[in-house]
Amino acid sequence: MTVPFILDTDTAQDDCVALIAGLLDPDADLRAITMVAGNVGFDKQVRNAHLTLNVCGRLGTVPIHLGCRQPMVVPWVSAENVHGDGSGGLDMDFAGTATEDEHAVDALIRLTAQEPGELSIVAIGPLTNIAMAAVKDPAFVRNVKRLVIMGGSNNGRGNITAAAEFNFYVDPHAARVVFEAGFADIVVVPWAPLTLQDAVFSREQLADIDRLGTSLSRFFLTVCGPTLAFDESVGIPGTTHPDSLSVGVLLHPELALASAQYHVAVETESELTRGYSAMSWGVHGLEPNATVVERADGPAFHTWITGFLATSTEPNRPFHGWDS
Amino acid sequence: MTVPFILDTDTAQDDCVALIAGLLDPDADLRAITMVAGNVGFDKQVRNAHLTLNVCGRLGTVPIHLGCRQPMVVPWVSAENVHGDGSGGLDMDFAGTATEDEHAVDALIRLTAQEPGELSIVAIGPLTNIAMAAVKDPAFVRNVKRLVIMGGSNNGRGNITAAAEFNFYVDPHAARVVFEAGFADIVVVPWAPLTLQDAVFSREQLADIDRLGTSLSRFFLTVCGPTLAFDESVGIPGTTHPDSLSVGVLLHPELALASAQYHVAVETESELTRGYSAMSWGVHGLEPNATVVERADGPAFHTWITGFLATSTEPNRPFHGWDS
Amino acid sequence: MTVPFILDTDTAQDDCVALIAGLLDPDADLRAITMVAGNVGFDKQVRNAHLTLNVCGRLGTVPIHLGCRQPMVVPWVSAENVHGDGSGGLDMDFAGTATEDEHAVDALIRLTAQEPGELSIVAIGPLTNIAMAAVKDPAFVRNVKRLVIMGGSNNGRGNITAAAEFNFYVDPHAARVVFEAGFADIVVVPWAPLTLQDAVFSREQLADIDRLGTSLSRFFLTVCGPTLAFDESVGIPGTTHPDSLSVGVLLHPELALASAQYHVAVETESELTRGYSAMSWGVHGLEPNATVVERADGPAFHTWITGFLATSTEPNRPFHGWDS
Amino acid sequence: MTVPFILDTDTAQDDCVALIAGLLDPDADLRAITMVAGNVGFDKQVRNAHLTLNVCGRLGTVPIHLGCRQPMVVPWVSAENVHGDGSGGLDMDFAGTATEDEHAVDALIRLTAQEPGELSIVAIGPLTNIAMAAVKDPAFVRNVKRLVIMGGSNNGRGNITAAAEFNFYVDPHAARVVFEAGFADIVVVPWAPLTLQDAVFSREQLADIDRLGTSLSRFFLTVCGPTLAFDESVGIPGTTHPDSLSVGVLLHPELALASAQYHVAVETESELTRGYSAMSWGVHGLEPNATVVERADGPAFHTWITGFLATSTEPNRPFHGWDS
Ligand SMILES: [Ca+2]
Ligand SMILES: [Ca+2]
Ligand SMILES: [Ca+2]
Ligand SMILES: [Ca+2]
Repeated sequence: MTVPFILDTDTAQDDCVALIAGLLDPDADLRAITMVAGNVGFDKQVRNAHLTLNVCGRLGTVPIHLGCRQPMVVPWVSAENVHGDGSGGLDMDFAGTATEDEHAVDALIRLTAQEPGELSIVAIGPLTNIAMAAVKDPAFVRNVKRLVIMGGSNNGRGNITAAAEFNFYVDPHAARVVFEAGFADIVVVPWAPLTLQDAVFSREQLADIDRLGTSLSRFFLTVCGPTLAFDESVGIPGTTHPDSLSVGVLLHPELALASAQYHVAVETESELTRGYSAMSWGVHGLEPNATVVERADGPAFHTWITGFLATSTEPNRPFHGWDS
Repeated sequence: MTVPFILDTDTAQDDCVALIAGLLDPDADLRAITMVAGNVGFDKQVRNAHLTLNVCGRLGTVPIHLGCRQPMVVPWVSAENVHGDGSGGLDMDFAGTATEDEHAVDALIRLTAQEPGELSIVAIGPLTNIAMAAVKDPAFVRNVKRLVIMGGSNNGRGNITAAAEFNFYVDPHAARVVFEAGFADIVVVPWAPLTLQDAVFSREQLADIDRLGTSLSRFFLTVCGPTLAFDESVGIPGTTHPDSLSVGVLLHPELALASAQYHVAVETESELTRGYSAMSWGVHGLEPNATVVERADGPAFHTWITGFLATSTEPNRPFHGWDS
Repeated sequence: MTVPFILDTDTAQDDCVALIAGLLDPDADLRAITMVAGNVGFDKQVRNAHLTLNVCGRLGTVPIHLGCRQPMVVPWVSAENVHGDGSGGLDMDFAGTATEDEHAVDALIRLTAQEPGELSIVAIGPLTNIAMAAVKDPAFVRNVKRLVIMGGSNNGRGNITAAAEFNFYVDPHAARVVFEAGFADIVVVPWAPLTLQDAVFSREQLADIDRLGTSLSRFFLTVCGPTLAFDESVGIPGTTHPDSLSVGVLLHPELALASAQYHVAVETESELTRGYSAMSWGVHGLEPNATVVERADGPAFHTWITGFLATSTEPNRPFHGWDS
Repeated sequence: MTVPFILDTDTAQDDCVALIAGLLDPDADLRAITMVAGNVGFDKQVRNAHLTLNVCGRLGTVPIHLGCRQPMVVPWVSAENVHGDGSGGLDMDFAGTATEDEHAVDALIRLTAQEPGELSIVAIGPLTNIAMAAVKDPAFVRNVKRLVIMGGSNNGRGNITAAAEFNFYVDPHAARVVFEAGFADIVVVPWAPLTLQDAVFSREQLADIDRLGTSLSRFFLTVCGPTLAFDESVGIPGTTHPDSLSVGVLLHPELALASAQYHVAVETESELTRGYSAMSWGVHGLEPNATVVERADGPAFHTWITGFLATSTEPNRPFHGWDS
């Protein structure tokens, strides 16, 4: 029994890993990739999605819908200082690669309407596309089965500011809209403390991955390597994988060792706290609107990811720019 | 030489008058009606649009596209305390009346893309549809010729609060997005002081309209009459016509006796000043982003409107609920 | 029967005129001058107060209490681009001039407590001292008879931004505190439209003042002259006198031709609308907390001011820097 | 060599413990108690201070200065749902107990001015008095040696809301003012995670205190007991002692096992995040303005407190309402 879902992504680094999992996990039924403005330049993100499909030998097999190139209200902010081009300088011949004519917002609305209550969404970028779909068509909210969101922090550190995690910071209004929209089943994979505790790959683990010697392991290290230096400079001992953990939590709920009901609200008004997620754990009299993952099975998550990386794949096209 | 345009409207009271002008003025080439959440319940607004097409004998001749049923970020606020159902209780047999399948946001994007730089838009409701189109497709902003906006006040009183005019108050984020989006030619028809000075029809003028004895004059009084009591209760000596003035300003620019370049910014962060339009008149070092109409030719505007009301039309269907 | 009051001032330009009126009007019983950070550097303001006392021959006769040198929450913003040093370069020998040891906040509290309900305050700068006194001692609010405030705009233009008048902009939190504090009798003299309509002295009127040939007329022109060029550059046909009008309205209530009850609230949260005064005129269901002067007797005000300027005074010390 | 300091307090529960430490620690030279609106009704807080002086046999030996009875800008919010009357129903004959005439704000200014750079302040309530002193007299900021603040959370949970700790929530503007004022040496003792990790007394520890059988142990349990049920209901396994830890950190810096430089900013504009403290740990390019205690020596802290509780004291007056 596979899990049908759409991956809404600002494809760079761990988004690529999330996409690999969504393509290769036998339990996954990835219906579409929807692209949203986030980590790096929009067109670079599209390239990164094609590169990832290519390394899996799946170029052209999953529709890519281009979505909003800017947040709903505020100007776009990039994380290129962290992510570079988002795929470690990797390149290939993109001739003939294509994306759908249909806008991501419309694809989200249409696909979920075709099978009401059957499709889930894993949203691992700013929530612009999801919120736009909710504003454009109220039925969208009712048609989504489960919405897994990578974003915010659960009463812990942000990353782009002390207060805020990147995805919610970039489009705080979209995040607010999504948590107020009435989705029946939202699962949140926060940055802190969850990701920092349970979804960091250490230098040792990266060295183990290097020894796998597959196209995928090489792709992984090329793509994720550039953030390592940045992560270490801010005190994180390895690469971070919240996006792939989000796919993991959808496909294998047992990866979430502890979760709880929270009321999540996102700050849109103040500059200081822009994008802060107020996650209230049940003592403030607020109605829960989301399940927040509090603890994940880090070793199982690592095993799950490295399982894919050990797989032998046939890239559709040769890569340029492999680390050597 | 006619002026091709789309009317984006929350059809109630003066929106109906604006639509009459858009249908009957020989200089107007009304391509589509796009509906946005605003004055009264969304479905009532659609009915009001059909009622207006009917009184003009034009039922079914202009496509009506349904747009966003809620603002971008904040919940919808109605003005039903002012407008009632928006058409004075008027009714007819709506059987067979239809609206387009295409969403208003998509219609705005498609129609303007078909003739880049040729179509104008008169937006006389909250700016949700316009902002959503701008966020969904950046090309939309470049494709619009002129965008006439009824909204805000030019350093004068609001109506729904001291600070804010209704359209900007209802969807302040949309208004902010629109003024920051980079439209080449925005013309603003503000509530105060412009509307209150130059677009109020007095009891005497309404009595003159009554004497016209046409279907249109009867329709006008039925539709606009209910706001008269409210207007007088807040010190306005007559019915107000900013929406129809906006159509007038597009079709007959000479109705604007004075206009100037302003930098317009709309408040989204504070509850007290939600929807306030900061219209800076050139002394604060801000780059202009709009032309604001400062003075209109009230008598000419009145003559222009009453000219239509004096016209004999054949309603497609009989009305129920005429005032008698 | 004289009117006992305290003048809370950021002494520059029209504050000097207000002080002249407070010193010379036989109906005035000026008990103290309290100084607050505002128009120009704090120490320059103190000098300007001494200069004004000097031109009236009253140096050392009224206690000057130094108050808050910064707003309550936000950093101080100067208006030196408008006001220069606030007295047109005027100078004198300040040796031996003195100010009180007691802080302005404490003087406000003590003086009003000594005669509960008897003393009024005319506040013609940012409201920092007044608000600090209210926060420090709740009894202060009850002890003040009438509080006349120069600040805000009544649904009209600001001056420092489109949205805001200078005094409220500089310390918006203080202004908010004052309007929420529960003073029994607040009278507001707003910038727009009142000041612009009824308290501007034209070039012709200034020429008439010049012909008076007194020390006071010379002082007035030296002090007020520098703002004339600025005012004209922003479209105001003359010098503006809201501060002296505020003293006028306390001493001679008949100068206010029209006033009404308003609910006044001041914006503190948003940068765009910082210091905006939402003056609600009774149609929004808010409890009035202030009387706002809507129309003043401009000619009578002008006559009242020029009456003082025609007076012959003996400055205590010679001035340096007279315009020649 | 004793440490001279002032205790600024909203005396209830752990404030009483902090006061006991400040009175009984031989290294402490407590010069004054300044009272600020916070936990419970202002007059109850004053009673609680007297009760605490009494149990130590020190009634009348330390001046109590009454300060601001409300926050700087926003209305007072109580924590009486947590704290009750703040001393577990304890009572005594208060006849003849007295407080100083001088306002707390003035006492803070005067005492620190008398010995510039020599006196420290431990602020364990909302920061209203401290901020008011800074606004009233800029020299105050320069005269304070060290300012220890109990408030905020270090990228962790709040208590009154998910986002905010009580002291900063109650007067966010004061907290903002204090962190922007330029104090040379601010030490922050945050609520989370520090207090929850290192300053909670468990039921077992409370039982041990009970066995001490002194007036002070009895006082402690009577005063702190009522919060135990509340704390346990929100998942905290014991009574919390951030205020006494703050005194501990001043008198015995070695109680702070880990501290680091942070830039602390406090949210004043948004309702959702009101009072949130953005504590930036050095990776966001912000200049540090405070030292935040990250880890305390919990056992040593506990030993330090229970050392006082084991002391035999002679209350000046008998208590009514002892738990029996
Ligand atoms: Ca991502
Ligand atoms: Ca309308
Ligand atoms: Ca002034
Ligand atoms: Ca406390």
